[in-house]
Amino acid sequence: MSKDVIKITLPDGSLREYPKGSTGLDVAMSISEGLARNVLAAEVNGEVWDATRTITTDAHVKLLTWNDDQGKSTFWHSSAHLLAEALEALYPGVKFGIGPAIATGFYYDVDFGDRVFTGEELEKIEAKMLELARQKNAYIREEISKKAAVDYFTQKGDEYKLDLLDGLEDGSITFYKQGNFTDLCRGPHIPDTGFIKAVKLMNVAGAYWRGDEKNKQLTRIYGVSFPKQKELTDYLTLLEEAKKRDHRKLGKELELFAFSEKVGMGLPLWLPKGTALRERLEAFLRKAQVKAGYLPVVTPHIGGKELYVTSGHYEKYGKDSFQPISTPSEGEEFLLKPMNCPHHCEIYKTKPRSYKDLPLRFAEFGTVYRYEQSGELHGLTRVRGFTQDDAHIFCRPEQVKEEFVKVIDLVLYVFNALGFTDYTAQVSLRDPENKQKYIGSDELWEKAEREIQEAADERGLKTVAVKGEAAFYGPKLDFMVKDALGRSWQLGTIQVDYNLPERFKLEYIGSDNQKHRPVMIHRAPFGSLERFVAVLIEHCAGNFPLWLSPEQISILPISEKFASYAETVYNAMQEADIRGSIDHRDEKIGRKIRDAEVMKTPFMLIVGEKEEAEGKVAVRKHGQGDVGVMTLEEFKNYFHKEADISVNA
Amino acid sequence: MSKDVIKITLPDGSLREYPKGSTGLDVAMSISEGLARNVLAAEVNGEVWDATRTITTDAHVKLLTWNDDQGKSTFWHSSAHLLAEALEALYPGVKFGIGPAIATGFYYDVDFGDRVFTGEELEKIEAKMLELARQKNAYIREEISKKAAVDYFTQKGDEYKLDLLDGLEDGSITFYKQGNFTDLCRGPHIPDTGFIKAVKLMNVAGAYWRGDEKNKQLTRIYGVSFPKQKELTDYLTLLEEAKKRDHRKLGKELELFAFSEKVGMGLPLWLPKGTALRERLEAFLRKAQVKAGYLPVVTPHIGGKELYVTSGHYEKYGKDSFQPISTPSEGEEFLLKPMNCPHHCEIYKTKPRSYKDLPLRFAEFGTVYRYEQSGELHGLTRVRGFTQDDAHIFCRPEQVKEEFVKVIDLVLYVFNALGFTDYTAQVSLRDPENKQKYIGSDELWEKAEREIQEAADERGLKTVAVKGEAAFYGPKLDFMVKDALGRSWQLGTIQVDYNLPERFKLEYIGSDNQKHRPVMIHRAPFGSLERFVAVLIEHCAGNFPLWLSPEQISILPISEKFASYAETVYNAMQEADIRGSIDHRDEKIGRKIRDAEVMKTPFMLIVGEKEEAEGKVAVRKHGQGDVGVMTLEEFKNYFHKEADISVNA
Repeated sequence: MSKDVIKITLPDGSLREYPKGSTGLDVAMSISEGLARNVLAAEVNGEVWDATRTITTDAHVKLLTWNDDQGKSTFWHSSAHLLAEALEALYPGVKFGIGPAIATGFYYDVDFGDRVFTGEELEKIEAKMLELARQKNAYIREEISKKAAVDYFTQKGDEYKLDLLDGLEDGSITFYKQGNFTDLCRGPHIPDTGFIKAVKLMNVAGAYWRGDEKNKQLTRIYGVSFPKQKELTDYLTLLEEAKKRDHRKLGKELELFAFSEKVGMGLPLWLPKGTALRERLEAFLRKAQVKAGYLPVVTPHIGGKELYVTSGHYEKYGKDSFQPISTPSEGEEFLLKPMNCPHHCEIYKTKPRSYKDLPLRFAEFGTVYRYEQSGELHGLTRVRGFTQDDAHIFCRPEQVKEEFVKVIDLVLYVFNALGFTDYTAQVSLRDPENKQKYIGSDELWEKAEREIQEAADERGLKTVAVKGEAAFYGPKLDFMVKDALGRSWQLGTIQVDYNLPERFKLEYIGSDNQKHRPVMIHRAPFGSLERFVAVLIEHCAGNFPLWLSPEQISILPISEKFASYAETVYNAMQEADIRGSIDHRDEKIGRKIRDAEVMKTPFMLIVGEKEEAEGKVAVRKHGQGDVGVMTLEEFKNYFHKEADISVNA
Repeated sequence: MSKDVIKITLPDGSLREYPKGSTGLDVAMSISEGLARNVLAAEVNGEVWDATRTITTDAHVKLLTWNDDQGKSTFWHSSAHLLAEALEALYPGVKFGIGPAIATGFYYDVDFGDRVFTGEELEKIEAKMLELARQKNAYIREEISKKAAVDYFTQKGDEYKLDLLDGLEDGSITFYKQGNFTDLCRGPHIPDTGFIKAVKLMNVAGAYWRGDEKNKQLTRIYGVSFPKQKELTDYLTLLEEAKKRDHRKLGKELELFAFSEKVGMGLPLWLPKGTALRERLEAFLRKAQVKAGYLPVVTPHIGGKELYVTSGHYEKYGKDSFQPISTPSEGEEFLLKPMNCPHHCEIYKTKPRSYKDLPLRFAEFGTVYRYEQSGELHGLTRVRGFTQDDAHIFCRPEQVKEEFVKVIDLVLYVFNALGFTDYTAQVSLRDPENKQKYIGSDELWEKAEREIQEAADERGLKTVAVKGEAAFYGPKLDFMVKDALGRSWQLGTIQVDYNLPERFKLEYIGSDNQKHRPVMIHRAPFGSLERFVAVLIEHCAGNFPLWLSPEQISILPISEKFASYAETVYNAMQEADIRGSIDHRDEKIGRKIRDAEVMKTPFMLIVGEKEEAEGKVAVRKHGQGDVGVMTLEEFKNYFHKEADISVNA
């Protein structure tokens, strides 16, 4: 083979030959012009490169487009450079800190000197960015000596870049240039600014240089950009909708939960309506679990330190957790429980177990406490105390697959009942290069990994297998659901565990009359009730399935004269297990209806003179209006039919 | 009136005149000879005296008999002296520590010197005590100077009494003598040893002098005594029965709960069967509460230290509680919650409240943690973590009475449904001599105390009012139930609270558009689920009402051949909401029946060839035996009829 030819292996396994020094773009062009127009970067032997960088050896190449996370991230990083270029053009003399891509979009930290930057000029900057983008300036990579780099930024007077250079080694430094702008940057970048067709600068915040409040505060400008205008429009619409559905906002408006400074950050107080919702979710799952052979248990929210020394959690997490609770005398130490498994292991140990007793499935709505930095807390999705819909299955190794299948069935039943119909799962496997990191024999691991995949396949679950993502104690299956806005949330999990049975010396007597070690499976379909409720609120925008709705009806008397008939209706509904309340306020009926609409109450029962005389109610449905005047009996039937539909929907 | 006459006021208010120097016994004799035979001591102006002690001034006198706690306690204290007299007679040279009455009976701490005392001689001592009792030796009180007292015990060589004397002031020292025995003692005592007709020495334990393990260990001999032989026999029978019903023993046998050393003392693990019981109790109460207008809420098990500083609990109990939980950074401090009220106050504060919103009744099965010395822990009745069936009613002052009536109704409904039909209540009032100890105006207190009594009377509750027993924050009503063995247990409580609304600055807007402070009512019908379950176990000896029974049925296949039919039966029962399990063990049917009897499972469904062929089950009822062969449909009907009966029983 000629020395001037390199062999490129593509992700589908196909092998092609190219002249030495070809680029990712060349590879794309050889496949199709359309692809070439969309290539943002190239993964070369596992490293993300500029699509325009020359490849000089045989390599595995994956072309990255907008559909790849790394493609997007390259695009946004290049957009940050474009932002900087625009800023330098508009505000000569500005200095720059760092400008990375983030989960959605990018930011750049800027020192405007004495100028007060208020964020009112963002539109002007956007316009400048688009103007520069239309110039289709290439992003040009340049390897540069440390001295030359220092000289450049010294001349420019940018102390931040000099500070960054200080930490870099000579020989590893690169500059990227586009148009009139040059930045110290490791790359990679998209081929040219022309790819950027839509830009939105979102907001401005203060950020200390290097995150240290002893340093100067810079102006952080956040933005997002897209290869098509329509994508930006869609994104902004989604943002607007997401804002309306924000569970923190709806949680407050619908009076589901609250936080109190005195109780503490990240420790939700469940208000009556939120509690009704939560209790329904628990009851729903409890029933499904009992049917599936789970045994509910209840354990305390603290445990002796020794329990967590045994489980290994103390050594691993002790320093970063809520600190131990000491006692006034007797020198005991307890920990807030960060998980329920050690307690369930102790329940397993309360009596000798035989192979005939297995599987044993201990279930608990167990509230656990985990310390999180206050800055990390977020509504109900990141809290310091939460209730897991937890269960631990203790089984024989040969039962792992069957139990996995059953758990998958349960998880999917739960997702479907709650209206999450778009889900996938990740199978997290061992890193085959690093087997010593994991506990448990090769044989056990191979069997369990194979069986999890088989179980998922049998149930037609869409899965992605990821090597190296398993916990050290066993492989797992994590569920992701897509909500109504198309956003992905990680919810339930199923994990195999060889470690705790070992640490707690759990045993069962096999049919051979010998002692054996059971396998544990941790599983939680919701993950945490708090997180699940947050996702559910955002998924259904607060319009919960009827059976879950905290207030299913609101009884609206037209005036105080009908208060007693309203009570009669209320009692009849309570008898029929229909939840709700009476709006006894001295307000006009129009106001009462509007308020019930805001509270998203599924049904309003309006009662006035005619209704009382005839023993009826005038029924309004949320978001729909009048559905007719009914006797109480008729309404109950109508209601229960609707409720059934929404369970099965 | 003659100087030689004193006026005695009796508890019924009647006033009688007696010669100066008359005794309680004289007063009794003047009423009836029968009474005189039963008088054990006399309460003279609030102090308990020997019935034989002369009264020289006008006085309020209450004659104490075996029916009074203080009568019993005097009787047992005198029995301790009788024990000492017997010991001195049998083992000359023994020395004595202290010998008080206790809740049931008495003990004496004894130093036997070099002699090893094993407890095998208890019967011999009992015989000696009865022999001395038959001598009807009077207990004679003698005031003695400190010097004379020290001389006496120096001569006798009893260093313990000398140690006790050391702490006493001259002029306040008394001796008591009966027969040949003299003791340093404050008294009072019964008239003579002849009152003691029955004695049982229960057991022997070691006890350090003054409870300090650096001191010598004495032999503590526990005993109990009665005025009639039959009372002792009844007591021993009761003890035997109580032992069989001990909830710690039954809790283990019936697999209801367990403790683990690693989790920690006093922190119960609820096993599946106990959890089933507990969940039923919670569901039962939750339903009754929702019907009564309670709003369930859920709050975390920790709270910021500031929350308890505000509530005043930190200052009052902080040092004796589980110590604060610190965080790895941010310097926050949290406490395990010892009660739910501060959290509920914070829920009250989540929005402005109007007089129309009140009463607001927040209910929570809230698990709280309170530190107890390990020596104080006892099964489920004294634990370190327990779940209160808690609620806090926030109401206007004029609603207190109506709310009290409603709570009493709820509490009595609960007691009756669970088979506790013998109950009384204590109304705890302010100490009128010490009004400054209490928070809240005179007017509020008088109104609330009056209304609590009225509410109790309206509901025909037997009450005892006790002055000085109120909490500093308000008056209360405590319920006592008698169990099947006639033992009294304190369970539920209802408490008015003026303090927390003040401390948390709770407000509502009145109909006058002004800000007002609500009143809080704390209430818990069970008190704690743990304690209630313990009492229930002992009350019904583990034979729970059918609707509560953790396992209502046990399906017993005659052999493995019928395992699949057993599953069919199991599924049919589960569909009908009948809880239970299949005994799949490879055991003879006789053994399976015996084991189900031990587990007190209400119904056994035996399935064999004939039953499978006919689609039937052979039904056995616990403690009763065969009740016939039934189709599944027939059994379900039979079962539900039985279950209804047991709810209403």
